[in-house]
Amino acid sequence: MLDIKVTKTTHPKEKPQDESKLGFGKQFSDHMFLMDYTAGEGWHDARIVPYGPWEMDPATTVFHYAQEIFEGMKAYRTADGKIQLFRPDCNANRFNDSADRLGMPPIPPEDFVQAVKALVDVDRDWVPHSDGASLYIRPFCIATDVGLGVHAAKHYRFAIICAPSGAYYAEGLDPVRIYVEDEYIRAAPGLTGFTKCGGNYAASIKAGELAEERGFSQVLWLDGVEKKYVEEVGSMNIMFKIDGEIYTAPCVGTVLPGVTRRSIIELLKDWGYKVHEERVAIADIMKAADEGKLEEVFGTGTAAVVSPVKELDWEGKVAHISGGHIGELTQKLYDTLTGIQWGKLPDTKGWIVPVE
Amino acid sequence: MLDIKVTKTTHPKEKPQDESKLGFGKQFSDHMFLMDYTAGEGWHDARIVPYGPWEMDPATTVFHYAQEIFEGMKAYRTADGKIQLFRPDCNANRFNDSADRLGMPPIPPEDFVQAVKALVDVDRDWVPHSDGASLYIRPFCIATDVGLGVHAAKHYRFAIICAPSGAYYAEGLDPVRIYVEDEYIRAAPGLTGFTKCGGNYAASIKAGELAEERGFSQVLWLDGVEKKYVEEVGSMNIMFKIDGEIYTAPCVGTVLPGVTRRSIIELLKDWGYKVHEERVAIADIMKAADEGKLEEVFGTGTAAVVSPVKELDWEGKVAHISGGHIGELTQKLYDTLTGIQWGKLPDTKGWIVPVE
Ligand SMILES: Cc1ncc(COP(=O)(O)O)c(C=O)c1O
Ligand SMILES: Cc1ncc(COP(=O)(O)O)c(C=O)c1O
Repeated sequence: MLDIKVTKTTHPKEKPQDESKLGFGKQFSDHMFLMDYTAGEGWHDARIVPYGPWEMDPATTVFHYAQEIFEGMKAYRTADGKIQLFRPDCNANRFNDSADRLGMPPIPPEDFVQAVKALVDVDRDWVPHSDGASLYIRPFCIATDVGLGVHAAKHYRFAIICAPSGAYYAEGLDPVRIYVEDEYIRAAPGLTGFTKCGGNYAASIKAGELAEERGFSQVLWLDGVEKKYVEEVGSMNIMFKIDGEIYTAPCVGTVLPGVTRRSIIELLKDWGYKVHEERVAIADIMKAADEGKLEEVFGTGTAAVVSPVKELDWEGKVAHISGGHIGELTQKLYDTLTGIQWGKLPDTKGWIVPVE
Repeated sequence: MLDIKVTKTTHPKEKPQDESKLGFGKQFSDHMFLMDYTAGEGWHDARIVPYGPWEMDPATTVFHYAQEIFEGMKAYRTADGKIQLFRPDCNANRFNDSADRLGMPPIPPEDFVQAVKALVDVDRDWVPHSDGASLYIRPFCIATDVGLGVHAAKHYRFAIICAPSGAYYAEGLDPVRIYVEDEYIRAAPGLTGFTKCGGNYAASIKAGELAEERGFSQVLWLDGVEKKYVEEVGSMNIMFKIDGEIYTAPCVGTVLPGVTRRSIIELLKDWGYKVHEERVAIADIMKAADEGKLEEVFGTGTAAVVSPVKELDWEGKVAHISGGHIGELTQKLYDTLTGIQWGKLPDTKGWIVPVE
């Protein structure tokens, strides 16, 4: 149990007037949670303070060796004004898996969740009211040693900031075009694919920009060894409905274990679907499309919940999916998950954590 | 040609009294070079200012997505008091290769070198005097957008800081024990191994720490696909002298093209050695050791120049090299390269750039 010292701002910012213009991660709430780590002493000085800049020495580890990890989650406002989180324990545990791989200190999951709840409580008026909008929560940790030696740092800062963010689908669930990346990779066994470390995202930017220039919304990554098996999309896991059954890459070190992925798999199994968490070759996906068996394709992630895919482009071949429309199952998953998250459907799974 | 505005410190720091206690990258000189980039406008505000902290918003890109690259080079003081650099154009070009892969803006190589020279000139009194000590120069660039979207940033800061650093071998060239890493990897084709991006180093920290706990000084990375071929060491390239010929991994995307590696290859060729820049299986290295043909092994890098290896441990097998002593060729390379760098030997290659 953290002893969190709260210092409230004396200059509250004006809240966004027009929630339809929120976008993603552009403005931040009034406060932030901070906690520092010193080797030998552990985590200390848990505090909520007014959001504001940090003084950083140019020789700080994080600027040079990218010892940095993050999480992404949301707070939702229900129709009756309650504020709630979705499976924050999953983010807390994944954060620690990232920390372990990057040589960084873990945070007790209950402290992590406590910190998130405490900050969202202080900034609860920042949770948007409009349909589909939410408060995006960004816990992250950076190495704060000052010096240029390459080794695990002895000082870290853990922070949580919050950004009121707009509905991902301002104009309804719009199916996207995905480029299957065959030159660059995102991960390989023995590297950091299963973590949310900054370096994974830095390495992915170039392929994303090139795909965007060609009119695609994201890239689909193939495995780093054979460039043969589908892994995940820029910031989503990906699932394929083929001949009535669901296929998605297994989380065995190279793929981020998405909280949405995991929740959707549970729902699908409840509904009687057969879910294969196994390697699927992109060639087999394209073949299924040719044969008319590729029924639905969708990304899964906190930002979009589900993102229907209407087109996959791989080595000059194009797979068109669901006639360019959102599939029936994709829609049902979206309705169910957002229903639970925004409190319109009962939480029979124990996934919801209220912020009281 | 940059127009560099110089603002000198009014509070110069005390210079290190005891150069034998300098260590590496722990203290910094009086000034730093800064330059900012804005999309559409390019690089602007080149300036040398007193070394000091930066105000950074917690939502700055570099803290989350590790869009950051760096270089490492040195300024040397000659016996007659001149200050000189070693092949700074190589660092400038490698910096731009890193920038391109990470979706960051390049810097004209002549501007890069101009900036390094200008800063070293201002802080020339910080270049150490004692044998083997030098001024370590760290140019780096970080993404400075404020916001959480994952894409190439539109704002960057390029900085150069300088750290007077001690002789790498305070007590002579001490051969090291190297652990051949068979679980974690550092790079794979399609990733960022050939760049000096922060993420490469973050991903390598855990293996380095584990090896250190077991009494090794660094890990030797194998290729990321088959874990079969030798690539490089923590912060050095590596070379093997087998039966009179030299073998080192080719620089084909997964290995950092070291400036020291390149210079040593030139010297070796001048001296009539056959140098194979090709993939070598670790199994073949161990076999050569068994057969008494593995004559010398050494790392190459700016920090150590050359680092003799006395032991390689791979899957429980141990190769002992040169009877635990520095090899003859390793010593000759060290003497020649440091001779050129510190101005004790003539620069017949045009590698030296004076700071006037
Ligand atoms: C690379 C990557 N894959 C998958 C996901 C989906 O994970 P989650 O469902 O936990 O949001 C994310 C991010 O959020 C991601 O960054
Ligand atoms: C991973 C890695 N390999 C090799 C080297 C050697 O390169 P250079 O000789 O340019 O210093 C370095 C660093 O300096 C490095 O970080």
